[in-house]
Amino acid sequence: MTTAYLSHHAPWGAYASFVLGEFGKGGGFALSDVHSPDRSVYIAYRTGRAPVQVLPFLSAPLGLGELAYQANADGVARSTPAVRSVPGEELDRQLLWASDEWRHGPFRLRLLSPFGEVPAPGTDDDALRLAVCPVVLAELELDNGDSDVPAEMLFALEGVNRPLSDTAGGALLGAAAGRSWGVAALPGAGVEEVQDFDVIGAAFGERRPRVRRLGNAGGVMLTVPAGETGRLVLALGTYQAGTITSSLNTRFFYTGFFSNLEEVLTFGLENVRHYWELAATRDEELLQSGLSQDRQFLLAHATHGYLANTQLLVREDGRPLWVVNEGEYRMINTLDLTVDQLFWELRYHPWTTAHVLDLFVERYAFTDEIKCGEERLPGGLSFTHDMGVSNVFTPPGISSYETENLDGCFSHMTFEQLTNWTLSATMYGLLADRSWLEEHVGTLEACLASLLVRDTDGDGVMDADSARTKNGAEITTYDSLDASLGPARGNLYLAVKTWASLVCLHQALTLLGRDGETARAQAQRTAERIVQAFDPARGYIPALLFGGSDACILPAIEALAYPFLLGLRETVSEQGPYGSLITALRRHLATALQPGVCLDATSGGWKLSSTSVNTWLSKIFLCQFVAEEVFGLQPNPRCDEAHVRWQQVGSAPHGPTDQVRSTDGHALGSRLYPRLVTSVLWLPRPWAEQAATRQTPFRVPLTT
Amino acid sequence: MTTAYLSHHAPWGAYASFVLGEFGKGGGFALSDVHSPDRSVYIAYRTGRAPVQVLPFLSAPLGLGELAYQANADGVARSTPAVRSVPGEELDRQLLWASDEWRHGPFRLRLLSPFGEVPAPGTDDDALRLAVCPVVLAELELDNGDSDVPAEMLFALEGVNRPLSDTAGGALLGAAAGRSWGVAALPGAGVEEVQDFDVIGAAFGERRPRVRRLGNAGGVMLTVPAGETGRLVLALGTYQAGTITSSLNTRFFYTGFFSNLEEVLTFGLENVRHYWELAATRDEELLQSGLSQDRQFLLAHATHGYLANTQLLVREDGRPLWVVNEGEYRMINTLDLTVDQLFWELRYHPWTTAHVLDLFVERYAFTDEIKCGEERLPGGLSFTHDMGVSNVFTPPGISSYETENLDGCFSHMTFEQLTNWTLSATMYGLLADRSWLEEHVGTLEACLASLLVRDTDGDGVMDADSARTKNGAEITTYDSLDASLGPARGNLYLAVKTWASLVCLHQALTLLGRDGETARAQAQRTAERIVQAFDPARGYIPALLFGGSDACILPAIEALAYPFLLGLRETVSEQGPYGSLITALRRHLATALQPGVCLDATSGGWKLSSTSVNTWLSKIFLCQFVAEEVFGLQPNPRCDEAHVRWQQVGSAPHGPTDQVRSTDGHALGSRLYPRLVTSVLWLPRPWAEQAATRQTPFRVPLTT
Repeated sequence: MTTAYLSHHAPWGAYASFVLGEFGKGGGFALSDVHSPDRSVYIAYRTGRAPVQVLPFLSAPLGLGELAYQANADGVARSTPAVRSVPGEELDRQLLWASDEWRHGPFRLRLLSPFGEVPAPGTDDDALRLAVCPVVLAELELDNGDSDVPAEMLFALEGVNRPLSDTAGGALLGAAAGRSWGVAALPGAGVEEVQDFDVIGAAFGERRPRVRRLGNAGGVMLTVPAGETGRLVLALGTYQAGTITSSLNTRFFYTGFFSNLEEVLTFGLENVRHYWELAATRDEELLQSGLSQDRQFLLAHATHGYLANTQLLVREDGRPLWVVNEGEYRMINTLDLTVDQLFWELRYHPWTTAHVLDLFVERYAFTDEIKCGEERLPGGLSFTHDMGVSNVFTPPGISSYETENLDGCFSHMTFEQLTNWTLSATMYGLLADRSWLEEHVGTLEACLASLLVRDTDGDGVMDADSARTKNGAEITTYDSLDASLGPARGNLYLAVKTWASLVCLHQALTLLGRDGETARAQAQRTAERIVQAFDPARGYIPALLFGGSDACILPAIEALAYPFLLGLRETVSEQGPYGSLITALRRHLATALQPGVCLDATSGGWKLSSTSVNTWLSKIFLCQFVAEEVFGLQPNPRCDEAHVRWQQVGSAPHGPTDQVRSTDGHALGSRLYPRLVTSVLWLPRPWAEQAATRQTPFRVPLTT
Repeated sequence: MTTAYLSHHAPWGAYASFVLGEFGKGGGFALSDVHSPDRSVYIAYRTGRAPVQVLPFLSAPLGLGELAYQANADGVARSTPAVRSVPGEELDRQLLWASDEWRHGPFRLRLLSPFGEVPAPGTDDDALRLAVCPVVLAELELDNGDSDVPAEMLFALEGVNRPLSDTAGGALLGAAAGRSWGVAALPGAGVEEVQDFDVIGAAFGERRPRVRRLGNAGGVMLTVPAGETGRLVLALGTYQAGTITSSLNTRFFYTGFFSNLEEVLTFGLENVRHYWELAATRDEELLQSGLSQDRQFLLAHATHGYLANTQLLVREDGRPLWVVNEGEYRMINTLDLTVDQLFWELRYHPWTTAHVLDLFVERYAFTDEIKCGEERLPGGLSFTHDMGVSNVFTPPGISSYETENLDGCFSHMTFEQLTNWTLSATMYGLLADRSWLEEHVGTLEACLASLLVRDTDGDGVMDADSARTKNGAEITTYDSLDASLGPARGNLYLAVKTWASLVCLHQALTLLGRDGETARAQAQRTAERIVQAFDPARGYIPALLFGGSDACILPAIEALAYPFLLGLRETVSEQGPYGSLITALRRHLATALQPGVCLDATSGGWKLSSTSVNTWLSKIFLCQFVAEEVFGLQPNPRCDEAHVRWQQVGSAPHGPTDQVRSTDGHALGSRLYPRLVTSVLWLPRPWAEQAATRQTPFRVPLTT
């Protein structure tokens, strides 16, 4: 297993992460972004009389910063300590669910990014404060037990400009970059601040003092007495003050608990035991999960990436606002991600899903028209693709992504987003919050009406594009895939998602005492239309039901997840009311999962379409779940092995990446993506099992 | 004359600038910094059926941003307009005092950065609001008079993420980067917002709409009807909200006048006429100044750089706080710059000098010890080198720069800073604010005592280093020059500065009714000690009076500027009380200004030391002033020509640079420096002429 890939270490909801893991590329804090800043991270130790061992996380040679000041050398020779750059292959690494551990000889570094259930604002301030504090922990350990001289270790970051002792009195030691981020330790025996242009020289060399305030690298070092093992616990904290977003003005929710970086770091260090135990609980849970090592890695890596994209804000009127940002694209609450990320959120913080759905209703819903030839007809309710981009909210009813007059990437996803809101709302409402569902019954009925009106010929499948596309055509979430998954009209993937939406609506409306029959009848039509397209000679349903692509696509089965998770097992059974659809999809899947069809012939990994090497891991994980849980397939370890390789090798320079080339994992798009947490479906799902049959609805307050 | 060099276009006191001018390197907004962000700046026009003419201010090829979203092309061919990249040599450029004009064929771009007198806070809010509004203007003009089809022009910036119309209603058109910076126009016929990955395609191609919210480039375009000349006026504004600094918490002063970016941009556009006239006044003033074109350029370029480094803040208690940042090094109020920049500040806003001097007394003064062998003796008052770095204030009594145990760069400048505070205080007090001087008489006397105690052998020249240097030695502002100007002890440059400090103290103390005789007597000793070191055989005074360098240095004459500007003409006269010193310095200067001594044999420019090619333009300008005004030398146009070449060619990639290699102008340090405004001394100095003889002291209130 390679050890060189970037991982994000992020607190929950802070849209900030500490990035590390690729050799020779540095890392550091990313704020309101997920791209690594590629700054040097100085992790080093020295034992006995050996040279200083510097881990391979520098992005530039040591100590160059000073040169800008020194056109002429000052003629004073400075002693520099002997340094050894540790080659990456000497490191052992283990990424677990809430930790990332690096070992080299007597030295160990652990980065802890604990996570767990998060209470809704207003219900438990103490628990919420712990959950939203924008801090992660680093734990360094150095075994100096066999030595007769002191040893030292250092953790320092490029980009700082002040020692923390200036503002924290004696309470904190460390270094910070302005008011934005920093690394801190509590004072203790052998703990010292270091800041310099050449932080290795300052920590391990003979020059004093160790703090030179012009130096742009700094952190904390610990001297470990001979014969002892030293341990240094660090808080890595961030603070983004003030109004963060535009158009819809918000601040970070945590600014209500903490008034500056120093308070964040202090709180982090005061609560080390809590965070340490929470991380250990998660790590142990994953280790004991029964998942293969490969799947454990995929879920852990995905989790780190998801957390890095999360952002809990608060509006000017005091209402909290939840955002998951879209990886490298930084779009706000992209609805085709929400529908897949709710598998995670229903486990740990279902109320955030409700926040997103409510904000879509409040601000990003619209009444559409559809195109019928030259005619424009009423299209009913739908939702935008997203709510904005890079901390900028778009005006009501407009997304940052969708543009008119296009047939491909950047066109409108009106129909797909209608199914996504419908599926998300019914999932959230039925599994977590029945009273929310009751309040939204009108919206659910409007969704049903809109689904129906877009099927102008009554065959159960969407055939009319939103008038917003003007001279273009609607697309799906698979915007950069080829014709097998890109276009919306007649798309098999979207047809099954339509069917799933109707099945879920039938369930919800019936439970709410409304007429569910219209939904059921349309679901039947949709199922029949899909089955009708099954090609017995080829053994699968072509990607576009109305022609245009006869690719075989895996996402045909994707949407079975929703009725299945709602506990509607008969709807996904070959013996149930939609038995012929399920049978067709079982046969479709069997055809798909052959080498050269949707198994990549080179790598052995899953690919979404037989006609494209552009494959999307978050969707593969979801389809794996359906294949195994609905159709009873056994996991194929060779496939998971390929997927791990894609994440580690191909996507190494960026961090968790969704769209990769199926031959080798080369990143094709959607880098640093949150959606990969669909892999959480591989774990037991008590939230679905129990809640699906819950009689008493519970309700989480949505305001502070 | 080359046209390719970066210039800063900055409002006063906003520590923010719009950077432009180097071909192929882009530019853009620098906030709390002066380095160009190297982002593409899209300035383009099209007339008739010709291709779009794109000015050479792109830092990357057009339209690549979209690729991250499109692993597979969508198959839709997009028409792209024919584009021509304008070669730099086709452009005409004229940098004036408050403007920077580029011409290409029928197209003209002017960037206006007007400046003038600034009233102290609390005296004239309306004038202050105009002065501190963080906005500069761009004016585009396109002559479409001879055409029968409409023409278009575009000004757009990389790095934006939102159209301004979203938040400004219909009042503004343009694009912004979050809440931080933006470009805006008032709505009008033919004015349109543009935002796209490929902003040239969006403005000049056929695709619509012109605003795609994911696109990271955006701005404003104007369509000019056939037969007309079109003019587009843009506000380029910034907004840095909230607490900006650490340790000593401050906000930008302008945040009291404007609550967000939109208000800044609106105010800028509402007051275009005021700004336009102010810029025209300054431009005209320089054109009519009688300075050579070369000197006009040097002063204009320096002014642009100075403004970019200025920062008016307000403390939590409401008191304003003035900062000039130190170019690429970003140090706060470096005192050895203050003493040279006050020539500028006394002209336009003398109260800022008082703010700096007061903050030094309040927070960055300390009582020193000096080293005498192994002994530590009382050293008296001195001041730190600076107040911090990159928006981080250091704790009281500590600078960001000074470090112990060094003999060269980064050592302490205790003695030099003592002279700098003394000179600045007497200059400010005597020329601008006699009552301030009265209030500070105790500090002036403490400075005198400290100057005296550091001359342990009573010969008039400092010979004892501050104990803060520990095992190191004090240095001068010429920290990266060689032994001729680096060390403090026995340094000729510093000896003359000591003499000047004593002369100014004598004047101030006498006027205040105190005993000035001690200062006068010590000045006499200092003068004698310097004269004694004159080497008649060589015709100059060696750089180090106590031995160690026999270089010939130009800054020997530098400090004559202060008594001269105070109107103490007899003190700088060969017939006056220090006549033998002035005679020695005249002969010194004559020797220095020979090729191969302090005239660079290759380039013809001035170099500060005969033994170093590291020369500092701000100090050259100051020495030129002294050489011409005190010693009556005629300006040598060939020298100024060399200095212009250094600024334009050698320092092109950075902007105004202080330390350059005297052979060719290659930047050696102090890039993007504010101190180059010493060149303002070439202009008439009514602030010195009138104020030096003023009887009634006037006082500017220092608090709002």
